[in-house]
Amino acid sequence: MHFPPLLHLRPHGAAADEEVAVEVPVALTVNGISQAVMLATPSDLEDFAVGFGLSEGWFTSRQELLDIEALPQADGIELALTVTAACEQRLKSRRRTLAGRTGCGLCGVESLAELGSRRPAVVTAPALQPGALDRALAALPPAQPLNARCGGLHGAAWCSSSGELLLAREDIGRHNALDKLTGALARQGADPRGGFVLMSSRASFELVHKTAMAGAGLLACMSAPSSLAIATARDLGVQLWAFVREGRATRYA
Amino acid sequence: MHFPPLLHLRPHGAAADEEVAVEVPVALTVNGISQAVMLATPSDLEDFAVGFGLSEGWFTSRQELLDIEALPQADGIELALTVTAACEQRLKSRRRTLAGRTGCGLCGVESLAELGSRRPAVVTAPALQPGALDRALAALPPAQPLNARCGGLHGAAWCSSSGELLLAREDIGRHNALDKLTGALARQGADPRGGFVLMSSRASFELVHKTAMAGAGLLACMSAPSSLAIATARDLGVQLWAFVREGRATRYA
Repeated sequence: MHFPPLLHLRPHGAAADEEVAVEVPVALTVNGISQAVMLATPSDLEDFAVGFGLSEGWFTSRQELLDIEALPQADGIELALTVTAACEQRLKSRRRTLAGRTGCGLCGVESLAELGSRRPAVVTAPALQPGALDRALAALPPAQPLNARCGGLHGAAWCSSSGELLLAREDIGRHNALDKLTGALARQGADPRGGFVLMSSRASFELVHKTAMAGAGLLACMSAPSSLAIATARDLGVQLWAFVREGRATRYA
Repeated sequence: MHFPPLLHLRPHGAAADEEVAVEVPVALTVNGISQAVMLATPSDLEDFAVGFGLSEGWFTSRQELLDIEALPQADGIELALTVTAACEQRLKSRRRTLAGRTGCGLCGVESLAELGSRRPAVVTAPALQPGALDRALAALPPAQPLNARCGGLHGAAWCSSSGELLLAREDIGRHNALDKLTGALARQGADPRGGFVLMSSRASFELVHKTAMAGAGLLACMSAPSSLAIATARDLGVQLWAFVREGRATRYA
Protein backbone atom coordinates (compact mmCIF):
# COMPACT_ATOMS: atom_id res chain seq x y z
CA MET A 1 0.00 0.00 0.00
CA HIS A 2 1.20 3.51 -0.80
CA PHE A 3 -0.10 6.36 1.35
CA PRO A 4 0.01 9.83 -0.22
CA PRO A 5 -0.52 12.78 2.16
CA LEU A 6 -3.41 14.11 0.04
CA LEU A 7 -6.29 12.35 -1.68
CA HIS A 8 -8.18 13.50 -4.78
CA LEU A 9 -11.88 13.37 -4.13
CA ARG A 10 -15.02 14.71 -5.79
CA PRO A 11 -17.36 16.65 -3.45
CA HIS A 12 -21.09 16.14 -3.85
CA GLY A 13 -22.37 17.98 -6.92
CA ALA A 14 -18.92 19.38 -7.77
CA ALA A 15 -17.50 19.52 -11.28
CA ALA A 16 -13.92 18.82 -10.28
CA ASP A 17 -11.89 16.93 -7.69
CA GLU A 18 -10.58 18.51 -4.52
CA GLU A 19 -7.59 17.49 -2.45
CA VAL A 20 -8.29 16.23 1.04
CA ALA A 21 -5.89 15.62 3.94
CA VAL A 22 -5.20 11.92 4.51
CA GLU A 23 -4.81 10.52 8.02
CA VAL A 24 -3.51 6.99 8.51
CA PRO A 25 -2.74 4.88 11.57
CA VAL A 26 1.03 4.97 12.19
CA ALA A 27 2.33 2.26 14.52
CA LEU A 28 5.70 2.93 16.14
CA THR A 29 7.75 -0.06 17.22
CA VAL A 30 11.10 -0.02 19.04
CA ASN A 31 13.29 -3.10 18.51
CA GLY A 32 10.15 -5.00 17.50
CA ILE A 33 8.00 -3.97 20.47
CA SER A 34 4.89 -1.89 19.75
CA GLN A 35 4.98 1.42 21.63
CA ALA A 36 2.25 3.64 20.24
CA VAL A 37 -0.25 4.01 17.41
CA MET A 38 -1.04 7.50 16.20
CA LEU A 39 -3.20 8.92 13.42
CA ALA A 40 -0.95 11.09 11.29
CA THR A 41 -0.52 12.70 7.90
CA PRO A 42 1.77 10.38 5.91
CA SER A 43 4.63 12.78 5.18
CA ASP A 44 8.08 13.24 6.81
CA LEU A 45 7.46 10.10 8.85
CA GLU A 46 11.14 9.52 9.66
CA ASP A 47 11.23 12.99 11.20
CA PHE A 48 8.07 12.09 13.10
CA ALA A 49 9.62 8.90 14.46
CA VAL A 50 12.70 10.74 15.73
CA GLY A 51 10.74 13.63 17.24
CA PHE A 52 8.14 11.41 18.88
CA GLY A 53 10.79 9.06 20.27
CA LEU A 54 12.87 11.92 21.71
CA SER A 55 9.76 13.51 23.19
CA GLU A 56 8.71 10.22 24.80
CA GLY A 57 12.22 9.61 26.08
CA TRP A 58 12.65 6.37 24.08
CA PHE A 59 16.18 7.59 23.30
CA THR A 60 17.96 10.65 24.58
CA SER A 61 20.16 11.41 21.60
CA ARG A 62 20.21 10.83 17.87
CA GLN A 63 23.16 8.44 18.40
CA GLU A 64 21.07 5.91 20.34
CA LEU A 65 18.74 5.53 17.37
CA LEU A 66 20.40 3.13 14.92
CA ASP A 67 17.76 2.80 12.20
CA ILE A 68 14.26 3.84 11.12
CA GLU A 69 12.26 1.92 8.55
CA ALA A 70 8.81 2.88 7.25
CA LEU A 71 6.88 -0.30 6.41
CA PRO A 72 3.54 0.25 4.68
CA GLN A 73 0.88 -2.28 5.75
CA ALA A 74 -2.63 -2.89 4.46
CA ASP A 75 -4.32 -0.53 6.91
CA GLY A 76 -1.54 1.81 7.99
CA ILE A 77 2.18 2.33 8.28
CA GLU A 78 4.63 0.74 10.69
CA LEU A 79 7.60 2.86 11.71
CA ALA A 80 10.17 0.36 12.93
CA LEU A 81 12.86 1.94 15.10
CA THR A 82 16.06 0.18 16.10
CA VAL A 83 17.84 1.50 19.18
CA THR A 84 21.01 0.50 21.05
CA ALA A 85 20.90 -2.37 23.55
CA ALA A 86 21.45 0.03 26.47
CA CYS A 87 18.54 2.10 25.30
CA GLU A 88 16.29 -0.95 24.88
CA GLN A 89 17.14 -2.04 28.42
CA ARG A 90 16.20 1.37 29.82
CA LEU A 91 12.94 1.37 27.88
CA LYS A 92 12.04 -2.10 29.17
CA SER A 93 12.57 -1.16 32.79
CA ARG A 94 10.48 1.96 32.29
CA ARG A 95 7.68 -0.06 30.70
CA ARG A 96 7.57 -2.27 33.76
CA THR A 97 6.96 0.70 36.03
CA LEU A 98 4.16 1.85 33.72
CA ALA A 99 2.49 -1.57 33.53
CA GLY A 100 -1.17 -1.52 34.34
CA ARG A 101 -1.77 1.93 32.97
CA THR A 102 -3.64 2.40 29.77
CA GLY A 103 -2.98 5.24 27.42
CA CYS A 104 -2.04 5.57 23.84
CA GLY A 105 0.20 8.58 23.56
CA LEU A 106 -2.65 10.83 22.49
CA CYS A 107 -4.08 10.96 25.95
CA GLY A 108 -2.91 14.02 27.82
CA VAL A 109 -3.83 12.57 31.16
CA GLU A 110 -1.17 9.91 31.17
CA SER A 111 1.39 12.40 29.87
CA LEU A 112 0.35 14.74 32.64
CA ALA A 113 1.07 12.13 35.30
CA GLU A 114 4.33 11.29 33.57
CA LEU A 115 5.63 14.83 33.30
CA GLY A 116 7.61 14.42 36.51
CA SER A 117 9.42 11.41 35.15
CA ARG A 118 10.42 13.16 31.92
CA ARG A 119 11.70 16.49 33.14
CA PRO A 120 13.84 18.22 30.54
CA ALA A 121 16.60 20.64 31.48
CA VAL A 122 15.57 24.30 31.57
CA VAL A 123 16.71 26.13 28.44
CA THR A 124 17.10 29.90 28.41
CA ALA A 125 14.82 31.43 25.81
CA PRO A 126 16.53 33.41 23.05
CA ALA A 127 16.14 37.18 23.15
CA LEU A 128 13.59 37.90 20.42
CA GLN A 129 14.49 40.72 18.09
CA PRO A 130 11.77 43.35 17.56
CA GLY A 131 9.20 42.13 15.03
CA ALA A 132 10.48 38.54 15.13
CA LEU A 133 7.07 36.98 15.88
CA ASP A 134 5.37 38.99 13.11
CA ARG A 135 8.05 38.02 10.59
CA ALA A 136 7.79 34.33 11.46
CA LEU A 137 4.00 34.50 11.31
CA ALA A 138 4.07 35.97 7.82
CA ALA A 139 6.48 33.25 6.67
CA LEU A 140 4.38 30.32 7.92
CA PRO A 141 1.63 30.03 5.25
CA PRO A 142 4.12 29.75 2.32
CA ALA A 143 5.96 27.09 4.35
CA GLN A 144 2.80 24.92 4.46
CA PRO A 145 2.43 23.69 0.88
CA LEU A 146 0.15 20.76 1.81
CA ASN A 147 -2.17 22.97 3.83
CA ALA A 148 -2.42 25.39 0.94
CA ARG A 149 -3.86 22.56 -1.15
CA CYS A 150 -6.27 20.94 1.32
CA GLY A 151 -6.72 23.16 4.40
CA GLY A 152 -6.95 21.66 7.84
CA LEU A 153 -3.27 20.87 8.42
CA HIS A 154 -1.33 22.34 11.31
CA GLY A 155 2.10 23.86 10.83
CA ALA A 156 5.11 23.79 13.16
CA ALA A 157 8.04 26.05 12.29
CA TRP A 158 11.54 26.54 13.60
CA CYS A 159 12.58 30.20 13.53
CA SER A 160 15.67 32.22 14.39
CA SER A 161 15.55 34.87 17.11
CA SER A 162 15.14 37.46 14.34
CA GLY A 163 12.01 35.67 13.06
CA GLU A 164 13.51 33.98 10.02
CA LEU A 165 11.62 30.75 9.32
CA LEU A 166 14.27 28.05 8.95
CA LEU A 167 12.25 24.82 8.76
CA ALA A 168 8.58 23.80 8.84
CA ARG A 169 6.59 20.59 9.02
CA GLU A 170 2.86 19.84 8.58
CA ASP A 171 0.40 17.35 9.99
CA ILE A 172 -3.32 17.00 10.62
CA GLY A 173 -2.43 16.75 14.33
CA ARG A 174 -0.65 19.66 16.00
CA HIS A 175 1.41 17.38 18.23
CA ASN A 176 2.50 15.33 15.24
CA ALA A 177 3.52 18.50 13.38
CA LEU A 178 5.77 19.49 16.28
CA ASP A 179 7.23 15.97 16.56
CA LYS A 180 8.08 16.10 12.85
CA LEU A 181 9.77 19.48 13.33
CA THR A 182 11.83 18.53 16.40
CA GLY A 183 12.73 15.22 14.72
CA ALA A 184 13.94 17.03 11.62
CA LEU A 185 16.00 19.41 13.77
CA ALA A 186 17.59 16.50 15.62
CA ARG A 187 18.38 14.70 12.37
CA GLN A 188 20.07 17.83 11.04
CA GLY A 189 22.02 18.23 14.28
CA ALA A 190 20.63 21.76 14.67
CA ASP A 191 21.11 23.61 17.95
CA PRO A 192 17.62 24.16 19.37
CA ARG A 193 18.72 26.82 21.86
CA GLY A 194 19.13 29.73 19.47
CA GLY A 195 15.63 29.87 18.02
CA PHE A 196 11.96 29.32 18.76
CA VAL A 197 9.01 27.17 17.75
CA LEU A 198 5.96 28.73 16.07
CA MET A 199 2.74 26.69 15.93
CA SER A 200 -0.39 27.44 13.88
CA SER A 201 -2.53 25.95 16.66
CA ARG A 202 -3.62 26.70 20.18
CA ALA A 203 -1.09 26.18 22.99
CA SER A 204 -1.63 22.85 24.75
CA PHE A 205 0.50 21.60 27.61
CA GLU A 206 1.78 18.73 25.44
CA LEU A 207 3.21 21.24 22.96
CA VAL A 208 4.97 23.05 25.82
CA HIS A 209 6.39 19.78 27.10
CA LYS A 210 7.52 18.64 23.65
CA THR A 211 9.23 22.01 23.07
CA ALA A 212 11.16 21.61 26.33
CA MET A 213 12.00 17.95 25.58
CA ALA A 214 13.47 19.09 22.26
CA GLY A 215 15.79 21.49 24.08
CA ALA A 216 14.10 24.70 22.91
CA GLY A 217 13.22 27.51 25.31
CA LEU A 218 10.44 29.41 23.54
CA LEU A 219 7.08 28.38 22.10
CA ALA A 220 4.79 30.79 20.24
CA CYS A 221 1.26 29.73 19.24
CA MET A 222 -1.25 31.48 16.99
CA SER A 223 -4.28 30.61 19.11
CA ALA A 224 -5.25 30.49 22.79
CA PRO A 225 -3.33 28.86 25.65
CA SER A 226 -4.97 26.52 28.14
CA SER A 227 -4.49 26.84 31.88
CA LEU A 228 -2.41 23.64 31.87
CA ALA A 229 -0.19 24.94 29.08
CA ILE A 230 0.62 28.06 31.07
CA ALA A 231 1.23 26.09 34.27
CA THR A 232 3.49 23.64 32.41
CA ALA A 233 5.46 26.46 30.78
CA ARG A 234 6.01 28.16 34.13
CA ASP A 235 6.99 24.86 35.69
CA LEU A 236 9.45 23.87 32.93
CA GLY A 237 10.85 27.35 32.35
CA VAL A 238 9.57 27.60 28.77
CA GLN A 239 8.76 31.10 27.52
CA LEU A 240 5.20 30.85 26.16
CA TRP A 241 3.56 33.27 23.74
CA ALA A 242 -0.01 32.82 22.50
CA PHE A 243 -2.56 34.69 20.37
CA VAL A 244 0.37 35.44 18.05
CA ARG A 245 -1.40 37.39 15.33
CA GLU A 246 -0.40 40.24 13.07
CA GLY A 247 0.88 43.05 15.23
CA ARG A 248 0.04 41.41 18.56
CA ALA A 249 1.05 38.58 20.87
CA THR A 250 0.67 37.85 24.58
CA ARG A 251 3.40 36.39 26.76
CA TYR A 252 2.05 34.02 29.42
CA ALA A 253 5.20 32.55 30.90
CA MET B 1 -11.76 21.48 45.02
CA HIS B 2 -13.92 23.71 42.82
CA PHE B 3 -13.09 23.86 39.10
CA PRO B 4 -14.30 26.96 37.26
CA PRO B 5 -14.22 26.78 33.43
CA LEU B 6 -12.09 29.94 33.21
CA LEU B 7 -9.13 31.11 35.23
CA HIS B 8 -8.03 34.70 35.85
CA LEU B 9 -4.36 35.08 35.12
CA ARG B 10 -1.91 37.95 34.57
CA PRO B 11 0.12 37.71 31.34
CA HIS B 12 3.79 38.72 31.48
CA GLY B 13 4.11 42.49 31.65
CA ALA B 14 0.34 43.06 31.46
CA ALA B 15 -1.52 45.58 33.60
CA ALA B 16 -4.63 43.48 34.06
CA ASP B 17 -5.74 39.86 34.31
CA GLU B 18 -6.98 37.82 31.38
CA GLU B 19 -9.32 34.85 31.38
CA VAL B 20 -7.84 31.53 30.27
CA ALA B 21 -9.60 28.26 29.41
CA VAL B 22 -9.22 25.62 32.13
CA GLU B 23 -8.78 21.96 31.26
CA VAL B 24 -9.03 19.32 33.98
CA PRO B 25 -8.82 15.53 33.99
CA VAL B 26 -12.37 14.13 34.06
CA ALA B 27 -12.61 10.46 35.06
CA LEU B 28 -15.78 8.65 34.00
CA THR B 29 -16.84 5.64 36.05
CA VAL B 30 -19.81 3.35 35.42
CA ASN B 31 -21.18 1.56 38.49
CA GLY B 32 -17.84 2.15 40.18
CA ILE B 33 -15.64 0.86 37.35
CA SER B 34 -13.28 3.36 35.68
CA GLN B 35 -13.98 3.63 31.95
CA ALA B 36 -12.11 6.65 30.60
CA VAL B 37 -10.20 9.74 31.63
CA MET B 38 -10.48 12.80 29.42
CA LEU B 39 -9.17 16.35 29.61
CA ALA B 40 -12.17 18.66 29.40
CA THR B 41 -13.45 22.12 30.16
CA PRO B 42 -15.30 21.89 33.48
CA SER B 43 -18.77 23.02 32.37
CA ASP B 44 -21.95 21.10 31.52
CA LEU B 45 -20.29 17.92 32.76
CA GLU B 46 -23.57 16.02 33.26
CA ASP B 47 -24.34 16.62 29.58
CA PHE B 48 -20.83 15.43 28.77
CA ALA B 49 -21.30 12.22 30.74
CA VAL B 50 -24.57 11.39 28.95
CA GLY B 51 -23.23 12.24 25.48
CA PHE B 52 -19.94 10.40 25.95
CA GLY B 53 -21.70 7.35 27.38
CA LEU B 54 -24.23 7.20 24.53
CA SER B 55 -21.46 7.65 21.98
CA GLU B 56 -19.39 4.86 23.54
CA GLY B 57 -22.43 2.60 23.76
CA TRP B 58 -22.28 2.35 27.58
CA PHE B 59 -26.07 2.74 27.54
CA THR B 60 -28.40 2.91 24.58
CA SER B 61 -31.10 5.14 26.01
CA ARG B 62 -31.49 7.82 28.64
CA GLN B 63 -33.63 5.34 30.65
CA GLU B 64 -30.72 2.96 31.24
CA LEU B 65 -28.78 5.74 32.99
CA LEU B 66 -30.08 5.97 36.56
CA ASP B 67 -27.83 8.66 38.05
CA ILE B 68 -24.89 10.97 37.39
CA GLU B 69 -22.83 12.52 40.14
CA ALA B 70 -19.94 14.95 39.68
CA LEU B 71 -17.39 14.41 42.46
CA PRO B 72 -14.57 16.97 42.56
CA GLN B 73 -11.24 15.43 43.60
CA ALA B 74 -7.90 17.02 44.38
CA ASP B 75 -6.56 16.76 40.83
CA GLY B 76 -9.67 16.47 38.70
CA ILE B 77 -13.32 15.52 38.62
CA GLU B 78 -14.94 12.11 38.80
CA LEU B 79 -18.19 11.68 36.90
CA ALA B 80 -19.83 8.70 38.56
CA LEU B 81 -22.53 7.12 36.37
CA THR B 82 -25.01 4.54 37.64
CA VAL B 83 -26.64 2.33 35.03
CA THR B 84 -29.17 -0.54 35.16
CA ALA B 85 -27.98 -4.05 36.00
CA ALA B 86 -28.74 -5.25 32.45
CA CYS B 87 -26.65 -2.44 31.08
CA GLU B 88 -23.75 -3.17 33.45
CA GLN B 89 -23.82 -6.82 32.39
CA ARG B 90 -23.62 -5.85 28.72
CA LEU B 91 -20.77 -3.47 29.41
CA LYS B 92 -18.84 -6.14 31.33
CA SER B 93 -19.11 -8.69 28.53
CA ARG B 94 -17.99 -6.04 26.04
CA ARG B 95 -15.00 -5.14 28.21
CA ARG B 96 -13.91 -8.76 28.18
CA THR B 97 -13.78 -8.81 24.40
CA LEU B 98 -11.70 -5.63 24.46
CA ALA B 99 -9.25 -6.92 27.05
CA GLY B 100 -5.63 -6.63 26.06
CA ARG B 101 -6.12 -3.49 24.03
CA THR B 102 -4.87 -0.21 25.28
CA GLY B 103 -6.55 3.04 24.45
CA CYS B 104 -8.03 5.82 26.44
CA GLY B 105 -10.97 7.12 24.51
CA LEU B 106 -8.97 9.92 22.93
CA CYS B 107 -7.18 7.58 20.58
CA GLY B 108 -8.84 7.48 17.20
CA VAL B 109 -7.17 4.25 16.27
CA GLU B 110 -9.02 2.13 18.76
CA SER B 111 -12.28 3.85 17.89
CA LEU B 112 -11.54 3.14 14.27
CA ALA B 113 -11.22 -0.58 14.91
CA GLU B 114 -14.33 -0.49 17.02
CA LEU B 115 -16.51 1.33 14.52
CA GLY B 116 -17.89 -1.93 13.25
CA SER B 117 -19.02 -2.96 16.69
CA ARG B 118 -20.85 0.32 17.31
CA ARG B 119 -22.75 0.82 14.09
CA PRO B 120 -25.60 3.27 14.48
CA ALA B 121 -28.75 3.11 12.36
CA VAL B 122 -28.67 5.26 9.24
CA VAL B 123 -30.65 8.47 9.73
CA THR B 124 -31.99 10.42 6.79
CA ALA B 125 -30.55 13.93 6.76
CA PRO B 126 -33.06 16.75 7.00
CA ALA B 127 -33.65 18.83 3.86
CA LEU B 128 -31.76 22.05 4.54
CA GLN B 129 -33.65 25.22 3.75
CA PRO B 130 -31.79 27.75 1.59
CA GLY B 131 -29.37 29.78 3.70
CA ALA B 132 -29.66 27.43 6.70
CA LEU B 133 -25.90 26.88 7.06
CA ASP B 134 -25.17 30.61 6.83
CA ARG B 135 -27.81 31.41 9.41
CA ALA B 136 -26.50 28.79 11.85
CA LEU B 137 -22.93 29.99 11.30
CA ALA B 138 -23.84 33.57 12.16
CA ALA B 139 -25.61 32.40 15.32
CA LEU B 140 -22.67 30.36 16.65
CA PRO B 141 -20.33 33.05 18.09
CA PRO B 142 -23.01 34.60 20.35
CA ALA B 143 -23.83 31.07 21.54
CA GLN B 144 -20.23 30.64 22.78
CA PRO B 145 -20.04 32.93 25.83
CA LEU B 146 -16.98 31.19 27.32
CA ASN B 147 -15.06 31.35 24.06
CA ALA B 148 -15.85 35.06 23.79
CA ARG B 149 -14.02 35.56 27.07
CA CYS B 150 -10.97 33.34 26.60
CA GLY B 151 -10.69 32.17 22.97
CA GLY B 152 -9.60 28.65 22.16
CA LEU B 153 -12.85 26.83 22.93
CA HIS B 154 -14.71 24.80 20.34
CA GLY B 155 -18.44 25.12 19.86
CA ALA B 156 -20.99 22.45 18.96
CA ALA B 157 -24.49 23.60 18.04
CA TRP B 158 -27.79 21.92 17.34
CA CYS B 159 -29.73 23.69 14.59
CA SER B 160 -33.10 23.30 12.89
CA SER B 161 -33.30 22.59 9.17
CA SER B 162 -33.95 26.29 8.64
CA GLY B 163 -30.66 27.15 10.41
CA GLU B 164 -32.07 28.31 13.72
CA LEU B 165 -29.53 27.60 16.47
CA LEU B 166 -31.42 25.77 19.22
CA LEU B 167 -28.69 24.69 21.64
CA ALA B 168 -24.90 25.02 21.92
CA ARG B 169 -22.13 23.67 24.12
CA GLU B 170 -18.44 24.55 24.48
CA ASP B 171 -15.24 22.72 25.33
CA ILE B 172 -11.51 22.99 24.75
CA GLY B 173 -11.80 19.65 22.91
CA ARG B 174 -14.05 19.43 19.85
CA HIS B 175 -15.13 15.87 20.64
CA ASN B 176 -16.05 16.88 24.19
CA ALA B 177 -18.09 19.83 22.87
CA LEU B 178 -20.10 17.45 20.67
CA ASP B 179 -20.56 14.96 23.52
CA LYS B 180 -21.91 17.78 25.70
CA LEU B 181 -24.32 18.78 22.94
CA THR B 182 -25.65 15.29 22.20
CA GLY B 183 -25.89 14.60 25.93
CA ALA B 184 -27.92 17.77 26.46
CA LEU B 185 -30.22 16.79 23.56
CA ALA B 186 -30.74 13.32 25.03
CA ARG B 187 -31.45 14.75 28.48
CA GLN B 188 -34.06 17.08 26.97
CA GLY B 189 -35.59 14.20 25.02
CA ALA B 190 -35.11 16.15 21.79
CA ASP B 191 -35.62 14.38 18.44
CA PRO B 192 -32.22 14.45 16.71
CA ARG B 193 -33.64 13.61 13.28
CA GLY B 194 -35.09 17.00 12.40
CA GLY B 195 -31.97 19.13 12.65
CA PHE B 196 -28.21 19.17 12.17
CA VAL B 197 -24.97 19.58 14.09
CA LEU B 198 -22.69 22.55 13.40
CA MET B 199 -19.10 22.40 14.70
CA SER B 200 -16.57 25.24 14.88
CA SER B 201 -13.77 22.76 14.17
CA ARG B 202 -12.45 20.62 11.35
CA ALA B 203 -14.35 17.44 10.47
CA SER B 204 -12.75 14.38 12.07
CA PHE B 205 -14.07 10.85 11.68
CA GLU B 206 -14.86 10.72 15.41
CA LEU B 207 -17.20 13.69 15.03
CA VAL B 208 -18.97 11.93 12.16
CA HIS B 209 -19.33 8.76 14.22
CA LYS B 210 -20.58 10.63 17.29
CA THR B 211 -23.15 12.47 15.16
CA ALA B 212 -24.46 9.15 13.85
CA MET B 213 -24.44 7.55 17.31
CA ALA B 214 -26.57 10.47 18.55
CA GLY B 215 -29.15 9.69 15.85
CA ALA B 216 -28.52 12.79 13.74
CA GLY B 217 -28.09 12.63 9.97
CA LEU B 218 -26.14 15.78 9.11
CA LEU B 219 -22.85 17.24 10.32
CA ALA B 220 -21.54 20.63 9.17
CA CYS B 221 -18.02 21.77 10.14
CA MET B 222 -16.38 25.14 9.71
CA SER B 223 -12.96 23.77 8.76
CA ALA B 224 -11.50 20.99 6.59
CA PRO B 225 -12.54 17.33 6.49
CA SER B 226 -10.03 14.49 6.70
CA SER B 227 -10.07 11.54 4.33
CA LEU B 228 -11.24 9.28 7.18
CA ALA B 229 -14.08 11.65 8.07
CA ILE B 230 -15.39 11.53 4.50
CA ALA B 231 -15.02 7.75 4.29
CA THR B 232 -16.82 7.34 7.64
CA ALA B 233 -19.64 9.66 6.59
CA ARG B 234 -20.15 7.75 3.36
CA ASP B 235 -20.05 4.46 5.23
CA LEU B 236 -22.51 5.50 7.95
CA GLY B 237 -24.82 7.50 5.70
CA VAL B 238 -24.14 10.84 7.40
CA GLN B 239 -24.43 13.93 5.22
CA LEU B 240 -21.15 15.80 5.73
CA TRP B 241 -20.52 19.47 4.98
CA ALA B 242 -17.17 21.13 5.59
CA PHE B 243 -15.49 24.50 4.99
CA VAL B 244 -18.79 26.02 6.12
CA ARG B 245 -17.99 29.71 5.92
CA GLU B 246 -19.97 32.79 5.09
CA GLY B 247 -21.64 32.24 1.75
CA ARG B 248 -19.95 28.92 1.01
CA ALA B 249 -19.88 25.29 2.07
CA THR B 250 -18.83 22.02 0.43
CA ARG B 251 -20.77 18.77 0.71
CA TYR B 252 -18.50 15.71 0.88
CA ALA B 253 -20.95 12.91 1.64
